[in-house]
Amino acid sequence: MDYTLESGVDPLREAINNSLTQFVDRENEYLRQIGSELYPVADALKNFLLDSGKRFRPLFAAAGFVGSGGVLDAASINAVASIELVHVCALIHDDVMDCSDTRRGAPSIHRLFESLHKTEGLQGSAEQFGVASAILLGDLALVWASKALHESGVTSQSLIRALPLYDEMRVELMAGQYLDVYEQALASESIERSLKVARYKSGKYSIERPLHFGASLATGANLSAYSEYGIPLGEAFQLRDDLLGVFGDPAQTGKPAGDDLREGKRTVLIAATLQNSNPEQKIRVNALLGKEDLNLAEIEELRSIITSSGAADYVENMISDLTKQSLAALETGTITSDAKSFLIHMAAVATKRSY
Amino acid sequence: MDYTLESGVDPLREAINNSLTQFVDRENEYLRQIGSELYPVADALKNFLLDSGKRFRPLFAAAGFVGSGGVLDAASINAVASIELVHVCALIHDDVMDCSDTRRGAPSIHRLFESLHKTEGLQGSAEQFGVASAILLGDLALVWASKALHESGVTSQSLIRALPLYDEMRVELMAGQYLDVYEQALASESIERSLKVARYKSGKYSIERPLHFGASLATGANLSAYSEYGIPLGEAFQLRDDLLGVFGDPAQTGKPAGDDLREGKRTVLIAATLQNSNPEQKIRVNALLGKEDLNLAEIEELRSIITSSGAADYVENMISDLTKQSLAALETGTITSDAKSFLIHMAAVATKRSY
Repeated sequence: MDYTLESGVDPLREAINNSLTQFVDRENEYLRQIGSELYPVADALKNFLLDSGKRFRPLFAAAGFVGSGGVLDAASINAVASIELVHVCALIHDDVMDCSDTRRGAPSIHRLFESLHKTEGLQGSAEQFGVASAILLGDLALVWASKALHESGVTSQSLIRALPLYDEMRVELMAGQYLDVYEQALASESIERSLKVARYKSGKYSIERPLHFGASLATGANLSAYSEYGIPLGEAFQLRDDLLGVFGDPAQTGKPAGDDLREGKRTVLIAATLQNSNPEQKIRVNALLGKEDLNLAEIEELRSIITSSGAADYVENMISDLTKQSLAALETGTITSDAKSFLIHMAAVATKRSY
Repeated sequence: MDYTLESGVDPLREAINNSLTQFVDRENEYLRQIGSELYPVADALKNFLLDSGKRFRPLFAAAGFVGSGGVLDAASINAVASIELVHVCALIHDDVMDCSDTRRGAPSIHRLFESLHKTEGLQGSAEQFGVASAILLGDLALVWASKALHESGVTSQSLIRALPLYDEMRVELMAGQYLDVYEQALASESIERSLKVARYKSGKYSIERPLHFGASLATGANLSAYSEYGIPLGEAFQLRDDLLGVFGDPAQTGKPAGDDLREGKRTVLIAATLQNSNPEQKIRVNALLGKEDLNLAEIEELRSIITSSGAADYVENMISDLTKQSLAALETGTITSDAKSFLIHMAAVATKRSY
């Protein structure tokens, strides 16, 4: 069965989800054969993978594929779906690095295995067991990502053409994640530096590289047009995420209110706030940001400074400008018209205000 | 330039090291272009990779390749060398999971970045920064492993044939690591269970799968002969490692004396000790094993129980039997004679007593 972009995002997302479910079921069967000790690993990875629904990166990869002349079939769906597993690794490890207790409203993987340790009355530190399990589950997801791509059924020629892009995407992801961790520790107040982190951590990895990966699975055409569309849109996407991390509704983000403030994330939004607030406000921001037991009143206080400093508007304007710049790039290259419409829609989805 | 197995282990190891150095230098150049923040990442990964010298897994892969009719050239050396980067990921993450302070006498990666945090006067928890950095460096090494293989220069046909084995090796590694972590937490006293962990964690991953991977880069011949050689030898290798973890000379192992005892590792050696010691000794073993501040007198006490219970001899006998079984398998299949001699030598290296 072939899939088209004309039917919109939902049927394509469903096809991607089906592909992921089939892959994970097959792999979990293998894990279970090794031993019953691995049942919790198999279950946790399956639930973690299927609990989320956006599938942004596979959708962009599918658009890149079609936009460069590919026809979506079961094999190419499997191939584009595989990059969601890279994302699963990133999220699981991210939660360990940030000491996050929850992900999409459910316990994060390290907390889940910490609980398992307690329930089963195991020996040693439950916290350390949780961390060790989450490191390994993330590693396994990263290996699965490769395996799912290799077994996707695309031709050898497609696969060989796509592998360098796949590798580059993953190297950039890890480099970007390190920049992010380092930037938090540096407590940077620079808008420029925060934007660079946003570009590597999310911009390239979430949109540009998936498009490139999809393009290379097809003919390899339109790489530069996809960069011109993908890099600014990726930055806008990350900026929206930063706004949601401060102002987002927990019911929608799956994270507690003001979670980024509690974690002390050094985003463009925070850098802009620090640059535009008065000395008194600045002292308050530095005192509250990253405070582990930040209460709701303090979150409101920070939100109010972020808004009154003009930083929230500043970031909204950046999102708007970057999105315009991104959409203009769709007129370059030879992107097919169905992919173009799909990418216009995806730009709206990636940057939409939902708080 | 072609390489042969006849010249022995050292020239081949040097060729593998050269390949790894070239790859890492190229990748580090790329990281440095992203930003100076990544210099410590590049330096740490290069030092970590080049500080060790055994290259067991690439050597076995090279033997598997030649034994199945391959002729070692620069491309196939690059391909077999790539699996050392999988091992780098495993070691970096293993040290985080075990909270190990040192690796080969130097600070482990998480401790190194913890120090960097302190030296640079960064904000937040230095320990957490160390853990986050080590998780990301391990992830990067795992991605590099794929990239090094993909860019090795072997033919598309070789690459496509080798990828499934490469994937299986990495899935088994992660599953084996989880079994190991779980087994420690379970404080298991079963010889059978400990042996299963040894098989997955090390047996298959260190020897059998590298041989398979090498074979598949060549013709794909001799997989079952390599399993019959590799699985018992891998177990023997792990059992030797377990003995070294208790009786090994810190100057040789690069780990403090009795490190496995302090970590409370549930090895076949410990399981055999518990099964064969008297009630009084058993109480002492359970009291001391995993004690974080284990002193030298207590290490000596445990060593003495392990020896007097007969467990050390029992494990030595297992190593000897498994090695014999392994060598007998070299007479099956169509392994070339140069590979056969090399594998006989490697069996001695992998299981030799050096304490």
